[in-house]
Amino acid sequence: MQTETETLTQQIAALRSGAISSTFLVERALDRAVRFKALNAFVALEPAHVISQAKAADVRRAEGRALSVLDGIPIAVKDNYLTQDYPTTACSRALPLEPAGMDATVVANLRSAGAVIFGKTNMHEWAYGATNSTSSFGPTRNPHNPDRITGGSSGGSGAAVAAGIVAAALGSDTGGSVRIPAGACGIYGFKPSYGRASRHGILPLSWSLDAPGPLAAALDDIGHLLPFFCGVDPKDPATRRAMPFDGAVSVGRPRLIHLAGEGLERSAEVDAAIQSALSRCNADITVAALTNVASYFAAWEAILHCEASAYHAPLLERNAAGYSAVTRAHLEAGKLLAGVDLLKAQQIRGDLVRQLVDLGNWDALVLPTLPIVAPRAGEEWQEFGGRRVTTQDSMTWFCWIGNLAGFPCISIPIGMSPDGLPISMMLMGRPNADEQLLAVAGWIDRNLRADH
Amino acid sequence: MQTETETLTQQIAALRSGAISSTFLVERALDRAVRFKALNAFVALEPAHVISQAKAADVRRAEGRALSVLDGIPIAVKDNYLTQDYPTTACSRALPLEPAGMDATVVANLRSAGAVIFGKTNMHEWAYGATNSTSSFGPTRNPHNPDRITGGSSGGSGAAVAAGIVAAALGSDTGGSVRIPAGACGIYGFKPSYGRASRHGILPLSWSLDAPGPLAAALDDIGHLLPFFCGVDPKDPATRRAMPFDGAVSVGRPRLIHLAGEGLERSAEVDAAIQSALSRCNADITVAALTNVASYFAAWEAILHCEASAYHAPLLERNAAGYSAVTRAHLEAGKLLAGVDLLKAQQIRGDLVRQLVDLGNWDALVLPTLPIVAPRAGEEWQEFGGRRVTTQDSMTWFCWIGNLAGFPCISIPIGMSPDGLPISMMLMGRPNADEQLLAVAGWIDRNLRADH
Repeated sequence: MQTETETLTQQIAALRSGAISSTFLVERALDRAVRFKALNAFVALEPAHVISQAKAADVRRAEGRALSVLDGIPIAVKDNYLTQDYPTTACSRALPLEPAGMDATVVANLRSAGAVIFGKTNMHEWAYGATNSTSSFGPTRNPHNPDRITGGSSGGSGAAVAAGIVAAALGSDTGGSVRIPAGACGIYGFKPSYGRASRHGILPLSWSLDAPGPLAAALDDIGHLLPFFCGVDPKDPATRRAMPFDGAVSVGRPRLIHLAGEGLERSAEVDAAIQSALSRCNADITVAALTNVASYFAAWEAILHCEASAYHAPLLERNAAGYSAVTRAHLEAGKLLAGVDLLKAQQIRGDLVRQLVDLGNWDALVLPTLPIVAPRAGEEWQEFGGRRVTTQDSMTWFCWIGNLAGFPCISIPIGMSPDGLPISMMLMGRPNADEQLLAVAGWIDRNLRADH
Repeated sequence: MQTETETLTQQIAALRSGAISSTFLVERALDRAVRFKALNAFVALEPAHVISQAKAADVRRAEGRALSVLDGIPIAVKDNYLTQDYPTTACSRALPLEPAGMDATVVANLRSAGAVIFGKTNMHEWAYGATNSTSSFGPTRNPHNPDRITGGSSGGSGAAVAAGIVAAALGSDTGGSVRIPAGACGIYGFKPSYGRASRHGILPLSWSLDAPGPLAAALDDIGHLLPFFCGVDPKDPATRRAMPFDGAVSVGRPRLIHLAGEGLERSAEVDAAIQSALSRCNADITVAALTNVASYFAAWEAILHCEASAYHAPLLERNAAGYSAVTRAHLEAGKLLAGVDLLKAQQIRGDLVRQLVDLGNWDALVLPTLPIVAPRAGEEWQEFGGRRVTTQDSMTWFCWIGNLAGFPCISIPIGMSPDGLPISMMLMGRPNADEQLLAVAGWIDRNLRADH
């Protein structure tokens, strides 16, 4: 899908050399947004507004006043990030109570660097689902095959990047919502460690699980974007000990642990792609099982539903009819959980962290991003590895582990299925070792590409 | 009550100079324990065992091998600290599931320093109450007047120190359980900042509110004891960033804020004693109100009941009949709280912390420890400041604020009521500024004593 357009890193170089202008980039992005309108990736996009931003960037650059290497580059923003120039709806008819007219911290950081805030992307309603089939703007479609879903909840961001409309987009991730559409659409997606990146101005789903993160066309692009996410933001207390992103970290031959076994099943074609990639990536590989996966998953669900219900309580009381039936049912169910069970779930989190840390001297844990390729739109169930699982639970099948543990995670594309759909690998790093994780992913990505 | 015995600091000096021996100290403590048996301060105490520890300490000291300045000094331990040489019952017939034969970290620290672990002290059943009237060993009595309660839940430790049986004792504090008996018995009690001191091996009541702390005969004694409480203990994850206690901190004329107003009422005699002490303590005093006290109190209660119910669930299922009816009722009630309400309570905690921090440039916040003097045994209700409050809620009236905020707190005696009962002042410090708080308390204590 990327044949006509550049990665973010290539756009940075082309702008710097003068080979292209921001106005060219943004007009081409607008053209492609029209051409791929059927993907339903964008829910708000003002051509005149983004072109004026691009022209201002071109003037700055011509005068030697570029604000950063990103000055003039279009970046799309998931519709749960507050933006001063677009409405924010979380793709729900129950409109948020948060004030309009302000930027989320990550958006403000990028805007200060000159990035063109290129419209708002479609998402699963309130980020409360992983298929992007429930949205007040309708579902998104996968650029690799419009009969297939993008996954979600950052599905519009995934489609926009995979279709080459923009090279990078912002997402948020509570149980995989950055990595799932990155995996299903064959691009790169990064979820920082919990508390490393500011959520200020991003409508929450579950505040002890939520992380914002970038989706991009190439691995190096992620490294250009993470400095705008990471570090202390006084407006997000969870970041009070966050270190800024250090782009200078490098690693040697990585030690990987491939997680497999009960609760971590995947389809034969996905497993074959992962095995093949592991054999070609020049790393030390061991295999390990996880115990108590079902108990950990229940803890993740309990925390998710309870926190979401607590956050939504005032809006649900005011405008229950604004929510889709399925989201409203989740929110009502979350109210029924007992406090003692929530506390139990919070304790189980600690058990997961200890089990993962105690697996040994690993640099990254490996799983597929998804157990299957992107499902067909409308399919309610998926079958893989002896399991029959709802499409929703198939999407989060592996990804929630990273949120419950709070570890940094990345999804990288590793190949295509026989019917032309992307297959991706997820890597999990140690808490707050986001830089090391990105470097390990870079090692693997370079080895896989060199091998072609 | 302290006429015949020394403070811990005086015992340290007398042992060092050779004026007394550990055997003398311990035998005198055993004599006084017999003499004050009616106070019901101890629930386990083995004379031969503590004398043998004292004799070993005397041998070490004679050979120049004293383990620390505390070597050979008897220290009493609340019955919810695990101890390798005594059973641990939390004064309940529902016996804990925790393993016997091990020391809590604080006990182990003191034992390694040569302290004589001088028996286990009576407490409110499972620390789930502040009167010490509910205990499988019967209630404790106040050394100043046996018709009066000690307050709790560390009531046995308070009585043992106030009666001069020992100069120091260990307590735990979830809503005032160190400070309440210290206040009611006219001694000193310190609750460290949340996460500063290890709770490992102390039976929990509410793990996000609990702190262990010392009760002692004099303010300097507290400074000798806090190094054994504070610092990282890998067995208590809440201490992972805890600094060791730095005894070298000093302060100048302190800036105090006296908290008063709605929700912070107290009896006329207690208020007069506080006003008198503030006028004599050579500090800068301002007065401030707190808003939303009732909402903060509800948050403290919700967290307390919910966490206690979660911790007790396995034992309650196994042996409900072992609990007193009132404790069992608390535990059953805690199960009924919804998760969303618990989350709301956790958010309200943050509001309290911000309100206290935002009061300005204070070195300590001042309240009475108790709104009244020690109540008569058997009284169900107390009246003060236009309020009619249960005796239980009268005991925690001010103290829970320190636990909900997680701030360090100390109770110091400031005088006696006309009928000969102690009145005490509570000081709250900034989070993790335990040393500064102790230094401020020392400043006030010295000025009040110099004034006599």
